Amino acid sequence: MQLPSVLLENAVNEFAKLPGIGKKTALRMVLHLLKQDAASVENFSETIARMRREIKFCQRCCNISDGDICSICSNSMRNQRIICVVENIRDVIAIESTQQFNGTYHILGGIISPLDGIGPDQLNIESLVKRIEKEQTEELIFALNPNIQGDTTIYYIQKKIQQFSCRVTTIARGIAFGGELEYADEMTLARSLVNRLPVQQYVK
Amino acid sequence: MQLPSVLLENAVNEFAKLPGIGKKTALRMVLHLLKQDAASVENFSETIARMRREIKFCQRCCNISDGDICSICSNSMRNQRIICVVENIRDVIAIESTQQFNGTYHILGGIISPLDGIGPDQLNIESLVKRIEKEQTEELIFALNPNIQGDTTIYYIQKKIQQFSCRVTTIARGIAFGGELEYADEMTLARSLVNRLPVQQYVK
Repeated sequence: MQLPSVLLENAVNEFAKLPGIGKKTALRMVLHLLKQDAASVENFSETIARMRREIKFCQRCCNISDGDICSICSNSMRNQRIICVVENIRDVIAIESTQQFNGTYHILGGIISPLDGIGPDQLNIESLVKRIEKEQTEELIFALNPNIQGDTTIYYIQKKIQQFSCRVTTIARGIAFGGELEYADEMTLARSLVNRLPVQQYVK
Repeated sequence: MQLPSVLLENAVNEFAKLPGIGKKTALRMVLHLLKQDAASVENFSETIARMRREIKFCQRCCNISDGDICSICSNSMRNQRIICVVENIRDVIAIESTQQFNGTYHILGGIISPLDGIGPDQLNIESLVKRIEKEQTEELIFALNPNIQGDTTIYYIQKKIQQFSCRVTTIARGIAFGGELEYADEMTLARSLVNRLPVQQYVK
């Protein structure tokens, strides 16, 4: 794709670096910005730069935050003795939107994946262990994606914290709501059978 | 979607203003930028702002340009007496990538569409008429999308320039290469029959 302007081309190349954006979509975005008035493009650009410059990570749970401690950790209405361990901030947003969890989080920043060169040292595991010790956490809930890397991470962390009297759980694996048994993989179906629930508990 | 930071939320909202980008995709982009080092995000932001600030429109053909005259208009290897009329710069890029056209362009900036409130005055038609008069253009090729608005625009411009001895053509309508007759709409099929070509000309 030959573009008539170097300025345009640079902007398209920058957008094309974003995940899931090819050159054509990038061009569409750039041409859209070109049609906006100068002030709003300036605002767009400044908002992005400012976000990267000023955003902080919560010193307690490693969540994205405007201050030193995030809004969840500083919320006294939430149970600070329950920690939900997640891979990244998108998982926090997903769980928050269910409105079913009233504890705090700990964001690992990834999961143990030797194939991708990600070991425990690159994740926020050390801070989690210290936190459990210091805060006398009552329950640790693992909400990691159900795959080998997720299970490896659970196993590793669980070993590290076994000296503490902290209850350790993981979110339920099973057939998704609206899913069909026929198309579920064997592993999921097998697990959902092994971990079957009394109907009374299910309809509660 | 409740986000844990105002800075993050502002950035997501800015991205979500782009065409075809929802909140979830915007968040994915912002989190991607957050993982990049500060300098490259600064560069991203500055490139966009600079593009909007410094980009110009060619004084002759209204194409996007780094200078007063675009690279196509200032290229003496191209036939400056042939003008291809297109709706927008994306069409220029599409035609350029065929490498079959060696003339110049004129970008209308839209097409006449009374339903969307776009009349001839909002388009670069006046400058096109002046240009044809001044440059003694030999041929004007309409490369507009084949629909009612496109045809209206062709009709309007053609009326405006009928006093000049300029040949006026339009790109061929017909069955697309790789298309199937069976699924072509009646209008296209009818036109491709009326404007049928001698095989000799076709295989040339």
